[in-house]
Amino acid sequence: MTATPSVRVTRLRELQVEDRAALDRLLDCARVAHVGFQVDGHPVVLPTAVARMGDAVVVHGSTGSRWMRSMAAGGEACIAVTALDGLMVARSAFESSLHYRSAVLFGRLTALEGSAKEDALGAVVEHLLPGRAAELRPSKPWELQRTLVLAMPIERWSLKVSDGWPEDGEEDVAGDAWAGVVPLVERGGPPRPAPDLRPGIPVPLSVRRIAPGDPVSPGTQSSGAG
Amino acid sequence: MTATPSVRVTRLRELQVEDRAALDRLLDCARVAHVGFQVDGHPVVLPTAVARMGDAVVVHGSTGSRWMRSMAAGGEACIAVTALDGLMVARSAFESSLHYRSAVLFGRLTALEGSAKEDALGAVVEHLLPGRAAELRPSKPWELQRTLVLAMPIERWSLKVSDGWPEDGEEDVAGDAWAGVVPLVERGGPPRPAPDLRPGIPVPLSVRRIAPGDPVSPGTQSSGAG
Repeated sequence: MTATPSVRVTRLRELQVEDRAALDRLLDCARVAHVGFQVDGHPVVLPTAVARMGDAVVVHGSTGSRWMRSMAAGGEACIAVTALDGLMVARSAFESSLHYRSAVLFGRLTALEGSAKEDALGAVVEHLLPGRAAELRPSKPWELQRTLVLAMPIERWSLKVSDGWPEDGEEDVAGDAWAGVVPLVERGGPPRPAPDLRPGIPVPLSVRRIAPGDPVSPGTQSSGAG
Repeated sequence: MTATPSVRVTRLRELQVEDRAALDRLLDCARVAHVGFQVDGHPVVLPTAVARMGDAVVVHGSTGSRWMRSMAAGGEACIAVTALDGLMVARSAFESSLHYRSAVLFGRLTALEGSAKEDALGAVVEHLLPGRAAELRPSKPWELQRTLVLAMPIERWSLKVSDGWPEDGEEDVAGDAWAGVVPLVERGGPPRPAPDLRPGIPVPLSVRRIAPGDPVSPGTQSSGAG
């Protein structure tokens, strides 16, 4: 085994961004990370909710999850956080690409305990739905006990940002094909109240901020939540 | 090293879906996969465009990419494809969760050559922007030579789908907190023509389908594409 993987981008090096603030902006808008680690020597990737807390990224899961326990065992991990911002529509398949921001962090995950654990869980809740943490009751001791919260320090990372224009050659530019970018935008749809929601409980501010539409009327919903 | 990781879901087993058609639906709407593999014994995760072609998933990249070449070397890989469909807003942090579809595939990646390689690249282009393949000129031999196309057979996989309602306990349901689901929806924003687009070239049908709005007028764009 050699030294840990280099964080120097080798392909499309001009897209590498070394600004920590740009990394934080990506981490602070991404809800999901993909964590790579090894299970009995085999590569495994697990998607999980993610949040930044200062100089660490935090993931969490159930103590009942075998893979969460594997990650907590202290082996090396790689956390990828990716935002897809658009389609780069070029005049050839070769130049066609995506607009994205892609962060990859290397390190080891450590289980948090005590108040650090509670703070990190609060950060995850608040990150996934800003304003929600203050609307919820405090966690109960048994809930905390069943939750594993893991942190990786933001130390070894690389960030690649693709936000330019297609780079078609002269011959293609002189041709008849269109080129440009289609931005991809995510938004919250109308909130769907849970079937067991007691009548008269209004949609909270946290939800209204992300999903400004009127809630779906409980009577009009199909049986599934999806 | 033991046998390869089990594809039996151990946590929230009730969310496991064994229907291959459901897997295909996820693969056919996801644009990005996260590929986990090992580089000199270290776990690495690489985000990349993905497409399904029959009973295989296909990723591609530049022959100049060190990590692409590592993946092509035939070692084991794990491909994660995740769709985030919504926020599950529960009455406690503990029950708060996400609506998602998460596929994890295990296997080895093989480089495609010849017509299989061309077909796979066409599938990727068509998948990222349906209708675009027919609008583009054929790829040139040197473009194909510089592109690495890798396929993993869809054989060992698991799919987990979270699309239910919050499962708050009686005490929380009787309380004053709201619960429900906020769907997250992605859409294409107004297309942005490339600065070097020749006047008079209309927005193609493939782009209009995904981004129905009027294109941004070239004169009103800021210098960057983002």
